Amino acid sequence: MWIFLVLVTGAAGLIAGIYAWMVFQKLVASPITHERVKKLTDTIHLGAMAFLKKEYTWLAPFVAVVAVLLGAMLGVGAAFAFILGALCSATAGWFGMFVATQANGRTTSAAMLDAAAAAEEAEPEAEEVEAEAEEVEAEAAEGEEAEEEEEDEEEDDEEYEEEDEEDEEEEESAHTTGNALEAAFSGGSIVGMIVVGLGLLGLAVAYLFLADNLGALAAFGMGASSIALFARVGGGIYTKAADVGADLVGKVEAGIPEDDPRNPAVIADNVGDNVGDIAGMGADLFESYVNSILAAMAIGVAFSFTKDGEALGLWGVGFPLFLSAWGIIASIIGCMMVSRKALGADLVVGFFKIIPGMGKVIDRIEAGDAAFALRVGTFVAGGLMILGTLVLSILFFITNAFSVFLSVTSGVLAGILIGYVTEVYTSGDYRFVQGVAQSSETGPATVILSGISLGMISTGIPVILICISTWISYYLAGMFGVAVAAVGMLSITGISLSVDAYGPIADNAGGIAEMSEQPEGVRKITDHLDAIGNTTVAMGKGLAIGSAALTALALFVAYSQAAKIDYIDLMNPNVIIGLLIGGMLPFIFCALSIDAVSKAAQKMIEEVRRQFHEIAGIMEGKAEPEYEKCIAISTSAALTQMIAPGVLAILAPVLVGFGLGKEALGGLLGGALVTGIMMALFMSNSGGAWDNAKKYIEEGHFNGKGSANHAAAVVGDTVGDPFKDTAGPALNILIKLMTVVALVLAPLF
Amino acid sequence: MWIFLVLVTGAAGLIAGIYAWMVFQKLVASPITHERVKKLTDTIHLGAMAFLKKEYTWLAPFVAVVAVLLGAMLGVGAAFAFILGALCSATAGWFGMFVATQANGRTTSAAMLDAAAAAEEAEPEAEEVEAEAEEVEAEAAEGEEAEEEEEDEEEDDEEYEEEDEEDEEEEESAHTTGNALEAAFSGGSIVGMIVVGLGLLGLAVAYLFLADNLGALAAFGMGASSIALFARVGGGIYTKAADVGADLVGKVEAGIPEDDPRNPAVIADNVGDNVGDIAGMGADLFESYVNSILAAMAIGVAFSFTKDGEALGLWGVGFPLFLSAWGIIASIIGCMMVSRKALGADLVVGFFKIIPGMGKVIDRIEAGDAAFALRVGTFVAGGLMILGTLVLSILFFITNAFSVFLSVTSGVLAGILIGYVTEVYTSGDYRFVQGVAQSSETGPATVILSGISLGMISTGIPVILICISTWISYYLAGMFGVAVAAVGMLSITGISLSVDAYGPIADNAGGIAEMSEQPEGVRKITDHLDAIGNTTVAMGKGLAIGSAALTALALFVAYSQAAKIDYIDLMNPNVIIGLLIGGMLPFIFCALSIDAVSKAAQKMIEEVRRQFHEIAGIMEGKAEPEYEKCIAISTSAALTQMIAPGVLAILAPVLVGFGLGKEALGGLLGGALVTGIMMALFMSNSGGAWDNAKKYIEEGHFNGKGSANHAAAVVGDTVGDPFKDTAGPALNILIKLMTVVALVLAPLF
Repeated sequence: MWIFLVLVTGAAGLIAGIYAWMVFQKLVASPITHERVKKLTDTIHLGAMAFLKKEYTWLAPFVAVVAVLLGAMLGVGAAFAFILGALCSATAGWFGMFVATQANGRTTSAAMLDAAAAAEEAEPEAEEVEAEAEEVEAEAAEGEEAEEEEEDEEEDDEEYEEEDEEDEEEEESAHTTGNALEAAFSGGSIVGMIVVGLGLLGLAVAYLFLADNLGALAAFGMGASSIALFARVGGGIYTKAADVGADLVGKVEAGIPEDDPRNPAVIADNVGDNVGDIAGMGADLFESYVNSILAAMAIGVAFSFTKDGEALGLWGVGFPLFLSAWGIIASIIGCMMVSRKALGADLVVGFFKIIPGMGKVIDRIEAGDAAFALRVGTFVAGGLMILGTLVLSILFFITNAFSVFLSVTSGVLAGILIGYVTEVYTSGDYRFVQGVAQSSETGPATVILSGISLGMISTGIPVILICISTWISYYLAGMFGVAVAAVGMLSITGISLSVDAYGPIADNAGGIAEMSEQPEGVRKITDHLDAIGNTTVAMGKGLAIGSAALTALALFVAYSQAAKIDYIDLMNPNVIIGLLIGGMLPFIFCALSIDAVSKAAQKMIEEVRRQFHEIAGIMEGKAEPEYEKCIAISTSAALTQMIAPGVLAILAPVLVGFGLGKEALGGLLGGALVTGIMMALFMSNSGGAWDNAKKYIEEGHFNGKGSANHAAAVVGDTVGDPFKDTAGPALNILIKLMTVVALVLAPLF
Repeated sequence: MWIFLVLVTGAAGLIAGIYAWMVFQKLVASPITHERVKKLTDTIHLGAMAFLKKEYTWLAPFVAVVAVLLGAMLGVGAAFAFILGALCSATAGWFGMFVATQANGRTTSAAMLDAAAAAEEAEPEAEEVEAEAEEVEAEAAEGEEAEEEEEDEEEDDEEYEEEDEEDEEEEESAHTTGNALEAAFSGGSIVGMIVVGLGLLGLAVAYLFLADNLGALAAFGMGASSIALFARVGGGIYTKAADVGADLVGKVEAGIPEDDPRNPAVIADNVGDNVGDIAGMGADLFESYVNSILAAMAIGVAFSFTKDGEALGLWGVGFPLFLSAWGIIASIIGCMMVSRKALGADLVVGFFKIIPGMGKVIDRIEAGDAAFALRVGTFVAGGLMILGTLVLSILFFITNAFSVFLSVTSGVLAGILIGYVTEVYTSGDYRFVQGVAQSSETGPATVILSGISLGMISTGIPVILICISTWISYYLAGMFGVAVAAVGMLSITGISLSVDAYGPIADNAGGIAEMSEQPEGVRKITDHLDAIGNTTVAMGKGLAIGSAALTALALFVAYSQAAKIDYIDLMNPNVIIGLLIGGMLPFIFCALSIDAVSKAAQKMIEEVRRQFHEIAGIMEGKAEPEYEKCIAISTSAALTQMIAPGVLAILAPVLVGFGLGKEALGGLLGGALVTGIMMALFMSNSGGAWDNAKKYIEEGHFNGKGSANHAAAVVGDTVGDPFKDTAGPALNILIKLMTVVALVLAPLF
């Protein structure tokens, strides 16, 4: 039967790859015609690929050394799995980045088409002078509509009928984003599918060779995690050094807008957005995805629903694989609801139209409501996933089907709720972020204090939700329940990463529009696209943190089984020592990465100041800034500074495990889990809140852009940058990497 | 034999009380002659006492309710011990505050005498004009010398000889602070002795009645902890609301100096310094002190050095009590080295002169070197303590004496080293704080980032030290070793609190000097006194955090013994859930207290702005500001906002214990211990570093006072205020309070 598992898993991975390929063909079929847009796209594309190449060159010896060590200690199987995991992760990052940097410029082009179409529609109606006036009005109206749409999101679906009245109005603005949405989401979904496709394909290959050595198989996850940690930290340092540097000198000191081509750090900033948000995030989710599956496999094989009952064996191994395989299908169908360029999409959508009520929904998507489309896509995938889980649970576990199904569902629900809570704490639509914005009345210090206390308090509900989900799934289906809950959360990574990656692509498209000096309407479209992705992104973040907690827990249990530990007793001083050291590591890790960002940002600031000062005519746009110098600063900072935190994460469990024993290592993992989750929530949410508090002020509240309030909020945003984009998300990887290192090395302790 | 323990313990407590009384008589013997100084002293004194009265009125019903509940659930003994603990803590706070607020003005008076003496010495030497010029030079030299002295501290004692050359120079400036040092240190040592005296006296009384019911005795610690938490949080909110409010409007917006009488928040600020730094810190250390002793007693009674050996019984109970009793004697002798006003001090010092080498040391103290005196006093007490520990270990444990002695010593060394590390991370003399100051070149955001990463990285070494000390003492003498290590660390609380409390008294004396418009020389003396206390204060902080960790650990073990738990298994999901919830609580706690400070500060800012705007002639000093309105804001914020964090700390262990069981509660305590220690270190050190980075800039580095750098550093300092003075130190209490609540309620789970 095990070869059957390999086939199904591999096939699902291949399907994802084929889907990605088809969408990619459609994407590149439309060339970029605008000269400057093309040049910028190429520059950013080459810059990003160059960085990735350098990064991989730096990581290759590390992978080789670890592989040799693993091979020597645990046999060739572990070394093979480790290299394969690292390779798959790196390949996913490479392709993801390749596609995303191609999609950026194409989204700009598409937005230019959309903007032109909108302008054409507006013109014939009146004389030229009036037309211009109307254009302004139309823009204003567009803004209002965008707000209305956001409000809509808060309203219940019950009020759907009422919205119909506005349909006509909406259509008008919606039409204007059709092409750009298509391009940006195409890019996002290619990234998403590559990640999950390579994940399952890699797992299938690894399992093919290591079906009888699940211990070594875990090294696949270790490879993925290692690359992910370096990619996240390196990418985070790269992008935030450029971002902070560009903002502090460009926006604050020189008073030029964001993404202004006169800013020497602007190309580094745009490259960084791809390096951090696409490659970093892709590697991150690749790691979460495969580790959740691996943890469930490791636990499933030995798990039994009753005491002294027979172990699940292959049934336990196969369930998470099948769940993930079905997740890919569900994700693809979800993606098809948003963008119908792939083969068979029309067929699928046509089928959905048959379902009562769905016809109206699809009409609305077809009318071009982007925000709605993204939500429907995600919900359709989620719904299919739950349905599939029910079917698979029954097929696999018969009498215990309902327990397993409810475990998975509780995990998924917890993830969605955490996402919702994240949204409430970090969106400008709610009182929390507005409170942070309000604290700008009394200067930057109170902005920082209120953001920090917001981030800290925001740990409460998510932790409670994680606890509830753990409690439910454990009592229904033991640790296997907890493990599959994490798999369930991540099974639709295909579409949730599509939506995640779509945001930065739209954002970068906006950057390119700005730098190539497109009319304001183009940027407006990309901004709008960026904004509507936010809700879904918050949900993705919630799933990421929730799944990290559950996956780490499952890996932790897998570790203790592999190390043959009877119990990890908190009253044992070695365990306490491990707990304290483990609890400390996330703090050290955050400190190192924040420090790296601020030091690199300082260098960047000095370089930008120097260029403004020394290059004559730079501010008048007559002389070209030396972009490559800023790129070099970000690159070298990212490469050199990613090493210490990465090595810390790998060495700490090894040292404690060999030095203080396997129980102490268990304590370390527990301590790291606790502070890691808290710090990840705290830092991500503080950072998100500061970001949106600044945007809220820029929307015109509290004296708006350029006021003292705005300056205070910019301080918060700058502090939040490394919080939310460097240290915070990397913590999720850190705790899993340490646990998977322990799991792989468990036989040695 | 147990009555003997009561007698020795009680006698030591009484001796501390008598010493405090004698010093107090000397202190109040010198009346305040300056009219305005007297009025200000009285105002602050009355304000502080009024707040304390209100606070206690609010806490009385809480104490009554908890006592009734404890009585109903655990018998009258627990209720009695709880009330006694709360009463002793409150009484110590009351007397401490009474004395400190009397000492403030007297220190100002003494500094006026010193300044006058210095002026007299300077005048006869030349004509008037030259004299003035020299005075300026002298001041400059004084500044330099202060720097030199600080540098000296870094040097090893070996280099002592070299310093002699500078003696002559130093004497000149030292003479000028003699009276003020005497007054400030007298105040500090009274506070210190009251706290330890009431601690041991209370314990003696409680033990007298509950010698056969050690479980109920733990309620004494719970009473002390509860009051301490409320006092720390309430006091912290009071002082920081006033401080932040006064600074942001007064210093930053209106541009008037600190402690300017035109600032409406100035009296609230000064009252707050006493409420927070004296009453809050006193209650904090009272709690640490008695809980470390109680934990050691609880563990000692059942402890045996060998498996299946006889339990220590009364020997285990008596040892920590005797250690503490001797600690009081050692502290008093240490205090006598600094200030010789108490009966018998000359005799003691005379005796020390006999010891080879000490003669020179005492000469230097007598020459008036304040910084040196404080260090010598602390070292003498510490040395005596180690000697006493050796003797007591031999007397109590014979064959195991060396194990116990080394355990205690490892704890004390860890505490001192943590203090040293704290000093390195938070003093302007080292590169860390200078790095934070340097980051002001790129604005407030980088100041915040560098301070945060400094605080996070500063968790590393202290945690390692705590782990090493735990490991050593556990392997030498089991959990009893860990428990007595904490007792050893805190046994000289008498003198370390004296030095701690001396700082704020000197600071307040400076405030009174400023407000009563004394010549600059007076303020200079008080500033100098304040500054030289800093090293010793850092050491005190290190001891506080180190002892909190060890005490919490010991209490934790005592809890698991009392609850008859076999093991607290990290693989049990209930324990994991407890761990996660426990790990979350310090974050929520910090968020609540930071939030309370920033909200109260905002109200304060609005009120001060209103008064500047509405009261005519306030800026010209013609109209008196409405001080009492600002006092009312701080008072009501402190009283209402201290409730939520306090109740959280008490309810959380109760709910988890009854809801999820005693193992889950064990997990909660472990989680809270881990994140509590990390956050306490992080927040205290970040806050301390920002404070000193600001001071470093004010000393003239990075463009000095009034520059953009300074403004950026002020933002850091403001953010750091609630970090280091509200949330950070309260966390130490939080983790112990939760553990002692668990310990007291253990029989019920």
